[in-house]
Amino acid sequence: MKARVYVTLKNGVLDPQGRAIHHALEGLGFSGVEDVRAGKLIELSLADGTSDADIEAMCRKLLANTVIENFRIERIAA
Amino acid sequence: MKARVYVTLKNGVLDPQGRAIHHALEGLGFSGVEDVRAGKLIELSLADGTSDADIEAMCRKLLANTVIENFRIERIAA
Repeated sequence: MKARVYVTLKNGVLDPQGRAIHHALEGLGFSGVEDVRAGKLIELSLADGTSDADIEAMCRKLLANTVIENFRIERIAA
Repeated sequence: MKARVYVTLKNGVLDPQGRAIHHALEGLGFSGVEDVRAGKLIELSLADGTSDADIEAMCRKLLANTVIENFRIERIAA
């Protein structure tokens, strides 16, 4: 069984990594870039029967810092 | 206009970050985790009219290291 976890910064939280990417894109001559937000994509291969509650607990305890980050879990059909 | 870029390591490429997450999950008592692959999620706010070719060029030039990484572009309806 596979699941994907998308971790993104909450709105209003400063994103230095996104800002650095934004500046670099402009430096490479890409105009029209208004904003860049960087996040994490974590692909988990899990034993069958792993519950949503387990995956949510993995996110809350380790994969996302819920003070400044949101997470979204997507199960992937095997 | 918004677009999301998903950057993941190519199969077979060693993923030390994924491995560290895997060990940490096991250390927290989560059994049943078979593998973990870490990647990047980049959300771009772009001027209307930015072409697919432009976004692909951003990926090839900066957002992804195409030697070891794959990227996937997803346009988000405004």
